[in-house]
Amino acid sequence: MSRRYEDLSGPEIAERVRPSSIVLLPIGAVEQHGPHLPLSVDHVIAHEAASAVVERVGDEFDIWLLPTLSVSKSNEHAWSPGTLWLSAETMMSVLRDIGRSLATTGVERVVLLNAHGGNTTLLTTALRELRLQFGFKTFCVHPSLPPAYGGTSTEDELGMGIHGGLNETSVFMHLRPGEARMEHARRWVPEALADNRHVRFGGSVSFGWLSNDFFDDGVIGDPTGASAELGAELFERAVTSLCEQMAEIASFDFGR
Amino acid sequence: MSRRYEDLSGPEIAERVRPSSIVLLPIGAVEQHGPHLPLSVDHVIAHEAASAVVERVGDEFDIWLLPTLSVSKSNEHAWSPGTLWLSAETMMSVLRDIGRSLATTGVERVVLLNAHGGNTTLLTTALRELRLQFGFKTFCVHPSLPPAYGGTSTEDELGMGIHGGLNETSVFMHLRPGEARMEHARRWVPEALADNRHVRFGGSVSFGWLSNDFFDDGVIGDPTGASAELGAELFERAVTSLCEQMAEIASFDFGR
Amino acid sequence: MSRRYEDLSGPEIAERVRPSSIVLLPIGAVEQHGPHLPLSVDHVIAHEAASAVVERVGDEFDIWLLPTLSVSKSNEHAWSPGTLWLSAETMMSVLRDIGRSLATTGVERVVLLNAHGGNTTLLTTALRELRLQFGFKTFCVHPSLPPAYGGTSTEDELGMGIHGGLNETSVFMHLRPGEARMEHARRWVPEALADNRHVRFGGSVSFGWLSNDFFDDGVIGDPTGASAELGAELFERAVTSLCEQMAEIASFDFGR
Amino acid sequence: MSRRYEDLSGPEIAERVRPSSIVLLPIGAVEQHGPHLPLSVDHVIAHEAASAVVERVGDEFDIWLLPTLSVSKSNEHAWSPGTLWLSAETMMSVLRDIGRSLATTGVERVVLLNAHGGNTTLLTTALRELRLQFGFKTFCVHPSLPPAYGGTSTEDELGMGIHGGLNETSVFMHLRPGEARMEHARRWVPEALADNRHVRFGGSVSFGWLSNDFFDDGVIGDPTGASAELGAELFERAVTSLCEQMAEIASFDFGR
Amino acid sequence: MSRRYEDLSGPEIAERVRPSSIVLLPIGAVEQHGPHLPLSVDHVIAHEAASAVVERVGDEFDIWLLPTLSVSKSNEHAWSPGTLWLSAETMMSVLRDIGRSLATTGVERVVLLNAHGGNTTLLTTALRELRLQFGFKTFCVHPSLPPAYGGTSTEDELGMGIHGGLNETSVFMHLRPGEARMEHARRWVPEALADNRHVRFGGSVSFGWLSNDFFDDGVIGDPTGASAELGAELFERAVTSLCEQMAEIASFDFGR
Amino acid sequence: MSRRYEDLSGPEIAERVRPSSIVLLPIGAVEQHGPHLPLSVDHVIAHEAASAVVERVGDEFDIWLLPTLSVSKSNEHAWSPGTLWLSAETMMSVLRDIGRSLATTGVERVVLLNAHGGNTTLLTTALRELRLQFGFKTFCVHPSLPPAYGGTSTEDELGMGIHGGLNETSVFMHLRPGEARMEHARRWVPEALADNRHVRFGGSVSFGWLSNDFFDDGVIGDPTGASAELGAELFERAVTSLCEQMAEIASFDFGR
Repeated sequence: MSRRYEDLSGPEIAERVRPSSIVLLPIGAVEQHGPHLPLSVDHVIAHEAASAVVERVGDEFDIWLLPTLSVSKSNEHAWSPGTLWLSAETMMSVLRDIGRSLATTGVERVVLLNAHGGNTTLLTTALRELRLQFGFKTFCVHPSLPPAYGGTSTEDELGMGIHGGLNETSVFMHLRPGEARMEHARRWVPEALADNRHVRFGGSVSFGWLSNDFFDDGVIGDPTGASAELGAELFERAVTSLCEQMAEIASFDFGR
Repeated sequence: MSRRYEDLSGPEIAERVRPSSIVLLPIGAVEQHGPHLPLSVDHVIAHEAASAVVERVGDEFDIWLLPTLSVSKSNEHAWSPGTLWLSAETMMSVLRDIGRSLATTGVERVVLLNAHGGNTTLLTTALRELRLQFGFKTFCVHPSLPPAYGGTSTEDELGMGIHGGLNETSVFMHLRPGEARMEHARRWVPEALADNRHVRFGGSVSFGWLSNDFFDDGVIGDPTGASAELGAELFERAVTSLCEQMAEIASFDFGR
Repeated sequence: MSRRYEDLSGPEIAERVRPSSIVLLPIGAVEQHGPHLPLSVDHVIAHEAASAVVERVGDEFDIWLLPTLSVSKSNEHAWSPGTLWLSAETMMSVLRDIGRSLATTGVERVVLLNAHGGNTTLLTTALRELRLQFGFKTFCVHPSLPPAYGGTSTEDELGMGIHGGLNETSVFMHLRPGEARMEHARRWVPEALADNRHVRFGGSVSFGWLSNDFFDDGVIGDPTGASAELGAELFERAVTSLCEQMAEIASFDFGR
Repeated sequence: MSRRYEDLSGPEIAERVRPSSIVLLPIGAVEQHGPHLPLSVDHVIAHEAASAVVERVGDEFDIWLLPTLSVSKSNEHAWSPGTLWLSAETMMSVLRDIGRSLATTGVERVVLLNAHGGNTTLLTTALRELRLQFGFKTFCVHPSLPPAYGGTSTEDELGMGIHGGLNETSVFMHLRPGEARMEHARRWVPEALADNRHVRFGGSVSFGWLSNDFFDDGVIGDPTGASAELGAELFERAVTSLCEQMAEIASFDFGR
Repeated sequence: MSRRYEDLSGPEIAERVRPSSIVLLPIGAVEQHGPHLPLSVDHVIAHEAASAVVERVGDEFDIWLLPTLSVSKSNEHAWSPGTLWLSAETMMSVLRDIGRSLATTGVERVVLLNAHGGNTTLLTTALRELRLQFGFKTFCVHPSLPPAYGGTSTEDELGMGIHGGLNETSVFMHLRPGEARMEHARRWVPEALADNRHVRFGGSVSFGWLSNDFFDDGVIGDPTGASAELGAELFERAVTSLCEQMAEIASFDFGR
Repeated sequence: MSRRYEDLSGPEIAERVRPSSIVLLPIGAVEQHGPHLPLSVDHVIAHEAASAVVERVGDEFDIWLLPTLSVSKSNEHAWSPGTLWLSAETMMSVLRDIGRSLATTGVERVVLLNAHGGNTTLLTTALRELRLQFGFKTFCVHPSLPPAYGGTSTEDELGMGIHGGLNETSVFMHLRPGEARMEHARRWVPEALADNRHVRFGGSVSFGWLSNDFFDDGVIGDPTGASAELGAELFERAVTSLCEQMAEIASFDFGR
């Protein structure tokens, strides 16, 4: 049986989407990922990770999968012709509108599965907006938490596999075999930044950056060693983790 | 070779998306279609029609296919729990943001392929906004023009196969065999409206309506005779027509 | 007795504007109409047509006439110095504000009488917004349906008497004798467009256009044969038709 | 020759509306004025005063008259069914849009002729917005300055002929003979307010008020002694003053 | 005991801020005041005047002092690098948000103490918005009413001590001894304006102006004779007057 | 010499605020902090921390201190009467307006010093907006990084000293001796949350919460052991850290 929200009819929504259900919104991006990867990377990862999660634990936790939001807030790549991006205002409006729509179903748990790091802070802001405005319990999960927001990256990348680096490239190679252009992969690690104690990705000082602030190619990380094998392992680990997260989300309450 | 816009890398966009290219944005909806069809109908049709067009004439007219916008302005179904809808303001903002993004590529022709009748007037308004603001040549095409906006419908439906009626149901049955719940299909034709000379779908007086204004089930039309065979025929006709339209669009200019 | 809404006092509004009444909002424009016509054309036509309708059937259908909205969404003429235009957002806000105001009277039927084709799709979108937000039955009527939206035009103009053409010029000559500058009238018909099967005014493909896309003069049509006599005939036909439309509007319901 | 802006054609605008011209926008309102006056009062006064000014000194100062903005910010009467009002945001957007439109003509002087006191502060705010954004010299004039903003009123009304009082009623009786319903006129003067030294209309403390804060009838003032004769005198004085003001406006510069 | 709103805890707010209390919001500005005064002038005056008022009559009238809004709508100084200013829209949003917040306390009287003349009309507009939306009794007071809005100025300045003139400079010298740079003070009085009967500060015609419209230095007035002594006298007079105003505000009602 | 931005005159701004300068905007909040602390806590901390930083290293790094933004986005406390809060939209508008103002000075480094955890994600989003729109290098620093965003808290509080807990209470006791009401301090630690592996403050799953989701008192943490001594130590550590951060910020570049 399908777990896709849109495969239900109107009357079925009323019957099947229950307060105890979870609605899952995958959020991708269509944005430049350097010369070695297509614009689709985050879109693909969001879609594939969400699908895998629903496949594994959708029935157990009564998860309903929304269509992936393919375009999101990618304005760190505004310099790059062709990157599609919603402004912060539009993105928030889209989330509010979806929240307002879902509120009519009575569902209580809404999960954003975000594959684009550039959305992270806006989505976290939105979690509160949606909770306050519609009363949802709201959550944001990531297939791979961005190093800029508490995630980790390889030592070789000095912890800065931020965009188009080893891990992301590997996961894409696993999910879309043969589509990466590895002949264009180069090492683009902003080494000087590693000397900083505070002003660094995930450091105590957050800073505004655009993806071409460091290198013209718009990549931050070192994809040269990427492989589908590593990607398979990372993706499996991500999905396993997401499934565990869904378990906690399914039973989460505020203890009152 | 892929014709999907997002399968290009950043540098490839610069090289492959040319002024003479066409960018095609399919627009669907996730909205109630009565008890016999899933919410996905317009999403499915937009996606399938656009894919078929690109498959057939994408190379010939240098068409680049954007990811389908799955959720759009479906507020005529706001009464129906679960219908996802963007407000008119959000929808326009999404279109402007996509336009602003595409403008950086230098492409000159932008086509909206709309499978949800409720978007039609807003999209037509947007065509001018995008032309004025970004200088694009802009177009809106439909797999099947809604009877409310100049399209036709069967005589048996008194020309009012507006939503979930014979044609739409048939096309869905063709595209997603076995997914319609025809046991729930009923005839919901607002017969009284047919007596009107002016205030009618496609009449000289347009009027504001919500999908439950006529019947509680939210359908307007008669899906009972629908069949995958008819759907196949209609879909083929639609795609053929869309391909012809793309040909005209590719060579369209204002004659100066 | 006056049928002008503004001629009532506050207490009279409460008494005279009833649920069964019709409120009629004429919508004009102040926009370039080529060198042979003043900017006022749509303003004049909206005002005169609405006045004539109210004169003839205002008592019969209990119509209350609002002041004509003189300036509206004329951004297809943004290139022409002096054209006054509201943005799509402002225009929608004005309509919402008027709707919010009228909702306090309890009136159920709101009719937009639109004399400017460039408003048509936005107004049709607004019909649903106002119905959803305030519960009105909403309608849009035209003294002359624009060819771009299902109306007709003369054969000689190849059906493209869109702006400042034969019919509009004639009607203006009838309503404001001696004010047209016919010595500046020229034939501006985009002949090449007539060869298109789809991408044409009123065709299956709608397209974004500005009024100077075809000719520098900002006219689309052939006013050279215009006459007050023809205008009188057209205007009489328009008013007759509008009166018939008001009759249908007055008794319109959704059949439930 | 007509001095109405809209009576010009597009090419004439370019020729006739010069930097040294003055564009005059009359601003009315359609709002309750108590039981003895129609909603149209401010609309009528704005229109008539502006027309009289243009008639007398339009040629001398090269004034171009815009169509009267009939509906404006009347939210002090939001409690009164039927009052039409734009929100502060919408009203500002309308003014900005008109400013943006006029800026294309090269005209340098824009005058708002305001007949509705409730607009005064918003319009004064707008003067700066339009000057900053478009470079206009901007002015706001009143047929009769509201007592709340520095104008005077009769002693008998204790200076509080704010809305529907002696002067306004008289002017309306002059401009539209026979249309006032004087049998409904009563004295509605908030006497207690006169004891205040600071918190009073035109006092050193401005305060927020709605038109039914004092009396249910929505009038502030004493119209009982109103007469067309007094109205004629007041109107003549107002027009004379407006003409003097136009003279100063025509030659106004910042002395640099 | 502190009279600062923010010194209360959440539960204390519920107990101490009563319907009969007054909430006082001082509003300053950080904007150029010519070469002889720092940007802080209005910020300092708002803060000091409000503090003095609360010190003297805070207990008597149960006044709760909000933190001073330091930055406000100073766009007449947009030309001057470094002036901080909120747009009219942002400023109104800030006031609405504060109003919406205060409405949860049940307080009925909200007073804006405004030290920046450029805010005056927007704040007066806001008084009505806040009254209508939240039901407050709303008031706006000034330490010194700007000559442009009914206040007075010295004869020597021809009544035009608008910005950085004698009085304001003196008050600042009193409040922040030693901080004015009087060696940079010059006479900047737009003498020509004094000849105008209507178009002048506080005249019957209001006009849009920027602070550099008259002189490059951005001052309007003559600060050369300013002294701390005069400032002390003016400030004392202002505070005395504000205290009287608070007394009237505390007992103000609409007489019904 | 003063390091307060507002103590400069207009001409001094042009001279003293250089591209190499740092502008520092402290951001506080006026929001409930439980029964034992006043609403001012974040306002006080932001102000005191920023002042201390400027005192110590202001000259060294050429820092200019803006007035503290006292009210910010505190909607997690919207349930608590009296909490003042700006909506996310207003808050972003205020930041944009300040950014737009600062851009005229040529300064290149803008630092937000945020003492209210509820702002963190919005501010981080704003860093990119301001960088993209105005070209600033932008930074966000915290006197104490909130545990929800990567900071730490005491073991006794199970890492959940989020709001009004041990550290914050102690720092306030140090900065404003005698103002805490420690007799109202209780332990409010959501113990159950500690069992979660993912959905927890600072966990891999972020979640939307309001400050009364866990306990009615609106505190999350255990302030019972708080002391001014601990506060002094924490504040000293915070300021030391902030000074180090300013050093890195002063010399930060993107390495190109």
